[in-house]
Amino acid sequence: MKPIQVGLLGCGTVGAGVAKLLIESRDRIAARLGTPLNLKTVADVDTTTDRGVRFPDGVFINDAWQVVADPDVDIVVEMIGGLGIARDLILKAFENGKHVVTANKALLATHGNQLRRIAAEKGVDLAFEAAVGGCMPVIKSIRESLVGNRILAMTGILNGTCNYILSKITAEGVAYETALAEAQANGYAEADPTLDVEGIDTAHKLAMLTALAYGMEINLDDIYVEGISRITPMDIDFARQFGYTIKLLAIGKDRGDAIEARVHPTMIPNDHPLSHVRGTLNAVSISADAVDEMMLIGHGAGKMPTASAVVGDLVDLARNLIMGAACRVPILSYQPDQIRPIPVLAMDELISHYYIRFSALDRPGVLSRISGILGELGISIASVHQKGRTSAGPVPVVMLTHEAREAAVKTALARIEELDIISEAPVLIRIEDENGIE
Amino acid sequence: MKPIQVGLLGCGTVGAGVAKLLIESRDRIAARLGTPLNLKTVADVDTTTDRGVRFPDGVFINDAWQVVADPDVDIVVEMIGGLGIARDLILKAFENGKHVVTANKALLATHGNQLRRIAAEKGVDLAFEAAVGGCMPVIKSIRESLVGNRILAMTGILNGTCNYILSKITAEGVAYETALAEAQANGYAEADPTLDVEGIDTAHKLAMLTALAYGMEINLDDIYVEGISRITPMDIDFARQFGYTIKLLAIGKDRGDAIEARVHPTMIPNDHPLSHVRGTLNAVSISADAVDEMMLIGHGAGKMPTASAVVGDLVDLARNLIMGAACRVPILSYQPDQIRPIPVLAMDELISHYYIRFSALDRPGVLSRISGILGELGISIASVHQKGRTSAGPVPVVMLTHEAREAAVKTALARIEELDIISEAPVLIRIEDENGIE
Repeated sequence: MKPIQVGLLGCGTVGAGVAKLLIESRDRIAARLGTPLNLKTVADVDTTTDRGVRFPDGVFINDAWQVVADPDVDIVVEMIGGLGIARDLILKAFENGKHVVTANKALLATHGNQLRRIAAEKGVDLAFEAAVGGCMPVIKSIRESLVGNRILAMTGILNGTCNYILSKITAEGVAYETALAEAQANGYAEADPTLDVEGIDTAHKLAMLTALAYGMEINLDDIYVEGISRITPMDIDFARQFGYTIKLLAIGKDRGDAIEARVHPTMIPNDHPLSHVRGTLNAVSISADAVDEMMLIGHGAGKMPTASAVVGDLVDLARNLIMGAACRVPILSYQPDQIRPIPVLAMDELISHYYIRFSALDRPGVLSRISGILGELGISIASVHQKGRTSAGPVPVVMLTHEAREAAVKTALARIEELDIISEAPVLIRIEDENGIE
Repeated sequence: MKPIQVGLLGCGTVGAGVAKLLIESRDRIAARLGTPLNLKTVADVDTTTDRGVRFPDGVFINDAWQVVADPDVDIVVEMIGGLGIARDLILKAFENGKHVVTANKALLATHGNQLRRIAAEKGVDLAFEAAVGGCMPVIKSIRESLVGNRILAMTGILNGTCNYILSKITAEGVAYETALAEAQANGYAEADPTLDVEGIDTAHKLAMLTALAYGMEINLDDIYVEGISRITPMDIDFARQFGYTIKLLAIGKDRGDAIEARVHPTMIPNDHPLSHVRGTLNAVSISADAVDEMMLIGHGAGKMPTASAVVGDLVDLARNLIMGAACRVPILSYQPDQIRPIPVLAMDELISHYYIRFSALDRPGVLSRISGILGELGISIASVHQKGRTSAGPVPVVMLTHEAREAAVKTALARIEELDIISEAPVLIRIEDENGIE
């Protein structure tokens, strides 16, 4: 059988990992596939830096366009990232009848609907396991394993940078800025960490998961996104006192006629399995009608874990090629004509438990004025914690609510913030607690 | 497109779950597949008991042979279990060119090599995700997602009955017999629990996992199996004092020229993720060169979780059928001509840490006589715990060893047991602790 020829675009950290794994696992992959997966060409703008991989002569080239034009290349692996040239190269690869593997979640979340339609038209595969959760087979699980289930909820820790920072603040009580600086020093956060810490990367991934789970158009714009940069050790400490851990969660839920799709810091009970997922690890908990609960845990990023997912996709596509079975599993698992737009619930309509921390002046009547406004808006308080004054200045007043509508909570907070006894904007953190709050 | 016709053999708990899921998820599955998965016939010796599923007239029949002979049936689901008629029916289904889905781990572990060869000869698929870990996609993960990895170790809690019993003893300090009786009362254990509590079911599953991970003949006979029936609250309590939890683990490890394949009660550190997996839940932790560590958690048994895995397999095989891509993934992931016998390390050769509890008479010199024999056999003691006497009679002397060879430990224990100061056979529990023992 003829070897399957792979062309790799981009030889940065993950690209070099893919090259390394293809070369080192060549025999193991051939034993499974019946023919080698041959790394024919690797293109990168910089071919002089050592990538820690020994390429045979002529394999490592400058010109990515040459790879997507090469009639011998069967599958293109796009490891450039970003929304620019990566997209143009993928489209050209499709045009030339090549199958594509990518880990580019930003591109998929932004232009995924277009890429999906063109790939389907051209009869080529587009695989992206590495785009969500790194080496965890969450895409394959939803696309293939859980197909008999109605997926009720997906709750994920999908960004290692955020999980590292929050774990650090939780364990050591350091400030957000200190934890971020350490993440940067350890290579877990970029110099400009915005995409990660503001939840945008997590939203990209959630957009993919909801599209797969519900057979819907990829819909990034309607996902609510809130990052972790305003999380303080004080709120983490209060969370602990109430039995909660704060995680940046991607939450996708089936609400019947709409879905919830939101990314924000969330308090989860300490006995929730996700609360034990620390450091840079990722995890997804899936609740579905047949399986009840299922969970995957693994490295969501990093050179070799990501490369593992890419190689898994490559072998899948190679098996399709060998069998003449391209597009065996549609890109979103559902047949293209079954993909529908599904509305995303507006955040104002969300029903949730809330943690609210007010900074109030320590005067008589504070609690009655705050709780009066909450009561007027139908928000019922489950628990109050007011610290005695230890120094001059405002004191924190913390409340946990029973289930309330987000719009009412926001209105109440806006009104409370205007009171003369309130010194700062209140802090609001949503709580996911199936067992309710006492 | 023509519907894919499914014939179901056996309508017990899981069989009825498969029927229910196929009927209730018909539209969702058709939207993914492009054509319905139609449940054409269901055969069971008892067609009078209500299964909680409404079958159209003529679907529920007595004669399983009619199903495997039906030229319209594309895929046969075997849910009868056991080694007898289930095997004959599967072989007849293969002969008639039908693809087969089964959850029958006992059959696969015992006759899997034969079934695999015949299926390959006939060019039909044999799928068995539900046979290991219920709804957790552990088979698919090893067969498809981790193909670029060298799998270093698989460590699994693969039997919900045992995990329930051990969790119960750990949480409540009750005796094994009490925990077993409660498991039986709750439907988590059979009237005859031998297959579960003696580790045999777990060994069946480990045989499948090692075959998949290492491309080896399924090899049940060489797997060391020890059950949980001799685990006492006392040993669980000592484990806790040393920072360990006792779990029945399936352990498969790549040792280069051989593999380790063993099932036994094992002490794992309390901060190991598997130690938090309680009740009837299953979990598998996979250590591999590219992914580092990955973990799956889910319900390993039960009507609907198992049915979910069966339906996932059915959709996979249906996609193959639609594409004319039967046997797209070889049954053990490796090409048939690449499957090799790989030796299983003899238990005598195992290098491990050990927990040993002696029942000794409370006399001077006990410790020196025990440790003397251990020392003569080159077994180094990491930690000793000797309880002061609280009542007349023997006292427990507990030792944790550094890494030692199992043969030496067994020889030492046999010699120590003969000492006049020893009143009972020593208790030996292996410890998995990557960080070593202090």
